[in-house]
Amino acid sequence: MATLLSTAQGDFEARFAELLSAKREDAPDVNETVAKIIADVRNRGDASVIELTSRFDRLDLTPDTLAFTEDEIDAACASVSDAEREALELAVQRITDYHARQMPEDAFWTDETGAGLGWRWTAVSAAGLYVPGGLASYPSSVLMNAIPARVAGVKRLDMCAPTPHGKVNPLVLMAARLAGVDTVYRIGGAQAIAAMAYGTDTINPVDKITGPGNAFVAAAKRQVFGKVGIDMIAGPSEILVIADADNDPEWLAVDLMSQAEHDESAQSILITDDPALADRTMQAVDALLGQLDRKDIAGASWRDFGAVITVRDLDEAARIADRIAAEHLELCVADPDALAAKITHAGAIFLGSWTPEAIGDYIAGPNHVLPTARSARFSSGLSVMDFLKRTTLTRMTPESLNIIGPAAECLAASEGLEAHGLSVRSRLDRLNARK
Amino acid sequence: MATLLSTAQGDFEARFAELLSAKREDAPDVNETVAKIIADVRNRGDASVIELTSRFDRLDLTPDTLAFTEDEIDAACASVSDAEREALELAVQRITDYHARQMPEDAFWTDETGAGLGWRWTAVSAAGLYVPGGLASYPSSVLMNAIPARVAGVKRLDMCAPTPHGKVNPLVLMAARLAGVDTVYRIGGAQAIAAMAYGTDTINPVDKITGPGNAFVAAAKRQVFGKVGIDMIAGPSEILVIADADNDPEWLAVDLMSQAEHDESAQSILITDDPALADRTMQAVDALLGQLDRKDIAGASWRDFGAVITVRDLDEAARIADRIAAEHLELCVADPDALAAKITHAGAIFLGSWTPEAIGDYIAGPNHVLPTARSARFSSGLSVMDFLKRTTLTRMTPESLNIIGPAAECLAASEGLEAHGLSVRSRLDRLNARK
Repeated sequence: MATLLSTAQGDFEARFAELLSAKREDAPDVNETVAKIIADVRNRGDASVIELTSRFDRLDLTPDTLAFTEDEIDAACASVSDAEREALELAVQRITDYHARQMPEDAFWTDETGAGLGWRWTAVSAAGLYVPGGLASYPSSVLMNAIPARVAGVKRLDMCAPTPHGKVNPLVLMAARLAGVDTVYRIGGAQAIAAMAYGTDTINPVDKITGPGNAFVAAAKRQVFGKVGIDMIAGPSEILVIADADNDPEWLAVDLMSQAEHDESAQSILITDDPALADRTMQAVDALLGQLDRKDIAGASWRDFGAVITVRDLDEAARIADRIAAEHLELCVADPDALAAKITHAGAIFLGSWTPEAIGDYIAGPNHVLPTARSARFSSGLSVMDFLKRTTLTRMTPESLNIIGPAAECLAASEGLEAHGLSVRSRLDRLNARK
Repeated sequence: MATLLSTAQGDFEARFAELLSAKREDAPDVNETVAKIIADVRNRGDASVIELTSRFDRLDLTPDTLAFTEDEIDAACASVSDAEREALELAVQRITDYHARQMPEDAFWTDETGAGLGWRWTAVSAAGLYVPGGLASYPSSVLMNAIPARVAGVKRLDMCAPTPHGKVNPLVLMAARLAGVDTVYRIGGAQAIAAMAYGTDTINPVDKITGPGNAFVAAAKRQVFGKVGIDMIAGPSEILVIADADNDPEWLAVDLMSQAEHDESAQSILITDDPALADRTMQAVDALLGQLDRKDIAGASWRDFGAVITVRDLDEAARIADRIAAEHLELCVADPDALAAKITHAGAIFLGSWTPEAIGDYIAGPNHVLPTARSARFSSGLSVMDFLKRTTLTRMTPESLNIIGPAAECLAASEGLEAHGLSVRSRLDRLNARK
C-alpha cells in the first residue's frame, strides 16, 4: 500500500520531505573490487578479460571469439519474428527522426571590431555502448544509446553485452544491427568497461562510454571517467502522474505500475485534485497487482516508494512536481500544455491522457535515458549532444586586436600573468611600429 | 629545456606516446578528509562552516558576516582603477554577447501520425560559483562562470570565495557585481562546496556548482555530484601552437610561456614544419624565461612538460594535434581555416598569428573554461548549456497511438514488461470499443 498524502494535512511538509529523501537504492561499495579489475585489464588485456568472463559469466572465450561474427548476428536476426523486427524497424526510424532534429548548428560571425568568433561541433570519434545481460538486456536500450551516437556522426560504435552461459537475447543483436553498431563483444561487467576505456589487443578503445549496468558497471564507469567520457549514472526509474477528475483509474493504475514493474526501487507517484480519483486509482492498482506477472516487484515498489498525493488545485500540483523533478511526468489533465508551462523540472513530459509513458520507452522518438533521483533539476536525457563536442573559434585581425587587446593586457596585469599580457603587447608593438 | 621531437626520428612514436601519457598532476588523495568535512557541514551547518573557516582561513565569521554586504562590495568596487573597471566592463559585454548566441531553441512539431513531439529548455534554478583564494583568485574566472549562468536564465547565482586572513581581491568582487552574482560568501574549500550543495541556515542550497579549485574543492565537487550538478574537474592548462615558417619566434615563445606561467604542471607544445623556426623559438623561450616574473613556474613547466615537434608538413601536424586534443590550439599558419578543418579535437582554436591565446582568456568572448588532459576528444568548454536542461515532450492523439502503439506493445512483450504493454493496450481497447 502506497503512502497517501494530502496537502491539506498539517504534517504534509514533513511527510513529503520524507518521501523526497527516501533512499531508494543501496548500491554496494564495490569500488575496490572494480579498481582491481580495471588494473588487471590494463595490465593483461585480452587474457584478463577472457579469464574474468570465464569466472563471472561461465563462458570460455578466445581473442577470436570475443566479438560476435557477422554470421552469428545474421543467425540471431533470422530467429526474430516478423512482428518484432517490424516493431524494431519502426522504433529505429522514429528515434532517428527525432534525434536528427537535435543536431546543433555551427556558427561563425564577424563582430564590430572585425574579429571572427564562433564555434563548431564535431562528433566523438569512437563510442562504446554497454548493454546489461540477463533480465535487463533490453533491445530498446540498444536503440536509445546507439541511435544518437550514429546520428551525431560517431565513426566507430562498439557494444559490450555479457552473455552468461553463452545465452544472448537475439533482439539485442538485431537492435545493434539495425542501429548501426559496428562490433558487439560478448563481455560484461567492470572488465568490459575497462576494455572499452583502455583497449586490449583485440578491443579498440573508445572515447565515450554510455549505457546502463549493475553496481560494478556503474563503479567502473565512474573510475574510467576522465580517461573517457561517460553518460549519467542512472538510478531506479520514476514516474509522476498528475491527473484531474476526468481520468480512468485503470489507465492511471497501469501507468503507475509500468514503472513499478521495472524494479523494487522504482517510484510511482500520483498527484490529483480529486480525492475520489485517488481512492479509485489505489483500488485499481491493488486489483492490477493481483494479476501482473511481475506483481512481486511492482508490489514491493508500490508499497515501499509509491505515493498518492491529493492537492487543492493543479497549481499546487505543479509546485510539488517541481520539487519531485521526476524522470517521467504524465500530465493527464484537460489542458496539459498549460500545466506543463507551470512546471520547470522534469526529464520527459507526456502530454494528455492518451500519452502513456511506455510509448516513450519504445517508439515515440525521444530518448528513454533520462535523469533520475531529482537530477532533472540540473541535467537532461541522452541526446546527440552526448556524442558531440563544441570547439570555440576566435580569429583576431590586427585592427581588432588593437581595439580589444589593451583590455586583455590590463586584466592580465591585474592577475599577475605577465606573459599573457606580453603575448598581446608584442603584437601591438609590431602593429604600432608599422604605422 | 623542453623535449625536442621530430616525426622523422625512428623512435618518434615511442617518445610521442611518452609525452602524451606523462602524468602532469599528482593530486593528493584527500577523499576521506573531504568526506568528513561534507558530513560535518551537513550535520552542523553554519557552525561547521564558521569553525572550518576559522581553522583553514584564519578568519572569524558569524552567520551575519558569512556573506559580503552590499556596502562591502561597493567599497571594494570603489577601489578598482578606472582602467580595470573599463576592461572588466568590456569583457562582460563581449562574453555576454558571445554566450547569448549559444541559447538553444525549443522545438515542437507534429509528425505524420498526428503525434506532437519536441523538447524545451529551462534554466537551472540556482547555481553556485566557486572562486579560489590566493594566487589563483582570478576575476576573469568569475566572469567566465557567472555570465553563462546569467545568460541561461539562472534565477539565483551565488558565489563562494575564501578570503584567507580576510584578504580579498577587489576585482573579484567587482567582477561578481558586474556579472550579476546575487550573494558572495567569504568561505572556501570543501566546506564551501558542501554548504552550496546541502545548504545551511544561512546559505541556500544550489542545483549546480561550477568553478575551479584545489584538490579539496575538486574532491568535494566529485562527492556532491548527483546531489547537485557540477562542471568538469579541470586539470593543468595546455597550449598547442602549430606554426609555419612565416612566424616571429618571439611571438611563439611568449604564447608558449603564457600557458607555462600558469602552473608548473601546465604544458606548452609547438609543432612546426620548419626546423629552423623550432630552433629559433626554443632560443626565444630561453631568452624570455630570463626576464619573466614567473620564470620559476614557467621554466619548470617548459622543462618538464614542454615540447617542440618538427613535422614533414601541416597534414602531419593536424594528425598529431588530434592525438594531443589540446585545450588551446593556436594555428599560426597562412591558411588557418584550412588547417582547422583537418583537426577534430580541440577545446578552443585561435586562428592565425594575430590571435594570441591570451585574448581568449579575457576578452574575445568565448569561454576560457575548457577541456584539459585530452578530454576535448569527448567534452566541451563551459557554455550556457551547462546551466540549461532539456525536457522532452510527447503528445499522442488516439489516432497516433493506434498507429504506433502496437509496436510498443510488441517490444514491451519481448522485454517481459507486461504493464508497459497494458498501458498502451487499455487505451487502444477503449478506442476500438468506440468504433
